[in-house]
Amino acid sequence: MISDQEIFDAHRGGKLTVSSARPLETTRDLSIAYTPGVARVCEAIHEDPALVREYTWTGNTVAVISDGTAVLGLGDIGPQAALPVMEGKAQLFQRFAGLNAVPIVLDTLDIDELFDTIVRIAPSFGAINLEDISAPRCFELERRLIKALDMPIMHDDQHGTAVVITAGLRNAAELLGRKLSDLKVVITGAGAAGVATAKMLIAAGVKNIVMVDSRGIIHPDRTPLNSVKQELARITNSDRLSGGIETALLGADVFIGLSRGHVNEEQLQLMAPDPILFSLANPTPEIDPELARKYGAVVATGRSDLPNQINNVLAFPGIFKGALEAGATEISQTMKLAASRAIADIARENLDVDHIVPSPLDPRVAPAVAKAVQAAAIARK
Amino acid sequence: MISDQEIFDAHRGGKLTVSSARPLETTRDLSIAYTPGVARVCEAIHEDPALVREYTWTGNTVAVISDGTAVLGLGDIGPQAALPVMEGKAQLFQRFAGLNAVPIVLDTLDIDELFDTIVRIAPSFGAINLEDISAPRCFELERRLIKALDMPIMHDDQHGTAVVITAGLRNAAELLGRKLSDLKVVITGAGAAGVATAKMLIAAGVKNIVMVDSRGIIHPDRTPLNSVKQELARITNSDRLSGGIETALLGADVFIGLSRGHVNEEQLQLMAPDPILFSLANPTPEIDPELARKYGAVVATGRSDLPNQINNVLAFPGIFKGALEAGATEISQTMKLAASRAIADIARENLDVDHIVPSPLDPRVAPAVAKAVQAAAIARK
Repeated sequence: MISDQEIFDAHRGGKLTVSSARPLETTRDLSIAYTPGVARVCEAIHEDPALVREYTWTGNTVAVISDGTAVLGLGDIGPQAALPVMEGKAQLFQRFAGLNAVPIVLDTLDIDELFDTIVRIAPSFGAINLEDISAPRCFELERRLIKALDMPIMHDDQHGTAVVITAGLRNAAELLGRKLSDLKVVITGAGAAGVATAKMLIAAGVKNIVMVDSRGIIHPDRTPLNSVKQELARITNSDRLSGGIETALLGADVFIGLSRGHVNEEQLQLMAPDPILFSLANPTPEIDPELARKYGAVVATGRSDLPNQINNVLAFPGIFKGALEAGATEISQTMKLAASRAIADIARENLDVDHIVPSPLDPRVAPAVAKAVQAAAIARK
Repeated sequence: MISDQEIFDAHRGGKLTVSSARPLETTRDLSIAYTPGVARVCEAIHEDPALVREYTWTGNTVAVISDGTAVLGLGDIGPQAALPVMEGKAQLFQRFAGLNAVPIVLDTLDIDELFDTIVRIAPSFGAINLEDISAPRCFELERRLIKALDMPIMHDDQHGTAVVITAGLRNAAELLGRKLSDLKVVITGAGAAGVATAKMLIAAGVKNIVMVDSRGIIHPDRTPLNSVKQELARITNSDRLSGGIETALLGADVFIGLSRGHVNEEQLQLMAPDPILFSLANPTPEIDPELARKYGAVVATGRSDLPNQINNVLAFPGIFKGALEAGATEISQTMKLAASRAIADIARENLDVDHIVPSPLDPRVAPAVAKAVQAAAIARK
């Protein structure tokens, strides 16, 4: 157990430090880094803006941006209360990929204002990690930013999660001798992570996905459906199911829980034999860990105290590192799939039912992901 | 001489690093800094927003914000080309005051958009250093931000410069056995630094200031005058002078050059005997250094290769440090005057004609300024 005292002590004064990358001791040092020497670098960038990536920190720096509307399990707690999470995320960027990351929390809930603000501060950074922004606002915001700005941009709650789930599912299927294209997958929760996971699994070859939200199975005849769920209804649920979670789970091979719902023993018994159970709600998984072990052939959660932790930190540091190193102007689905494959491949070196994904602290992961993402970005150019 | 090669090499990859303030090695470290532990800190800040200064980096972090419109002697070069200067400024904050500073460059020229953007990102930081924003826009922007946000905000090109000039003038007068209230002071340039310097010198006790801009002496009957110059016309020029630089210099005790103008020998001869000459244009002072030495009793410039360098770095690190340590919600004129006195006092320990201000590298300065500013802030509370 970790005491509150220990947690608060570890946060006192904040968790990040900005320091000079070079010594700044002499008058000469100052004349190079600041006036008058710096003027030469400013002039060079003014003449050729592409040089900004080479001669400023933007080539190695990510903004971690949030409006504080969907923070951990806490919901809409506002920008200031969200800041400790963004600082923590910035620490992870440095720890795993050696990137500079700057936490930016925004004091507005309006999507146009969020968009305008991020576009205006964008020249300060090399890439943008959107974080803990509530659905469905996060979809529109990410889409508009990607269109407006020629730099790597990713909402990690969507795509980081999707990348690691896809890696885990790939390995779970491998362990059980099944093909992704033969699996019937049920995803509960159609928020940021659920939507991105569905799309990525389809891109990875899964053919049969049924999405379930708080109102039941998503299908085209259900009304009202926002535009994101309309798209989901089109691209999932090929059997045109309607109804509740039981209908969805009947004969399903895979359960991916990304909601705060609860799945009981009777519902688990509806699934196909030896199901794959990714029960990712935090801190309380949708399926009781005992029950999951009893019914599941492979079980994953979001918890660090159980095997097979689906943790975004396996994905985002390497994805941004690779994108920045490639000079990529976007983070494409191809790059994300490459990241997913790289994560899965590392786990395959010691693949077993309790190790379908690497440990979050495995130092091989971020460099391998970065390399794969960089290669995918360059191949596309 | 410093070669271009050396300058560009020193800028490659940027000049700043963000790192974790604490080790992040074990699963336990991660659980404290990030999920699940961080949630406790978020909840605490959500309940009591004042805790954000204690448990995030904002208590020790300054944003260095520019729109790139008035960068060094380069003018309006835009946000990306301005970034190397902001990185350098951030290095100075760390080097001299141990503060974290984050360069933020903004991709808009519109003053309402600048204001909105800065207000929205403000919760990410503890204080705001505005930098290299063109006059007269800088005056309105700073005024509106100070009104809107309860945090230390200062446009350094205005007030940092004014603080150091005031310190230098105080010591120059001391050396020459004169009183500030008896001096006739001419300031050329009514941009950011000129305006702030006039106001601070008045607050410090100077009674007779004549401001000269590119159109001559500023007086109330001159039209058109923007609102900033109208205010200057009211608070300066008690003799109601009008005309050019010669009229202003006639019998003047002090020249403070903050323009790109040129003052020749004949003009210097118009001044009172043994004048104080602050010729601060960079890289070419308004008065030729040889001439300045010939006529001036005390001479200061902005150059690091000449005595008495008037350098903002003597002021801003300590001012922001002191304001943050006091938990100040503004940087008042009283706090700036306290900073100015602290800088002057350090130079007085070895006061002579070539040492009216401390060296920019003097390690005593920032702590003394911080202490004085903190005391002034707390006295006001």
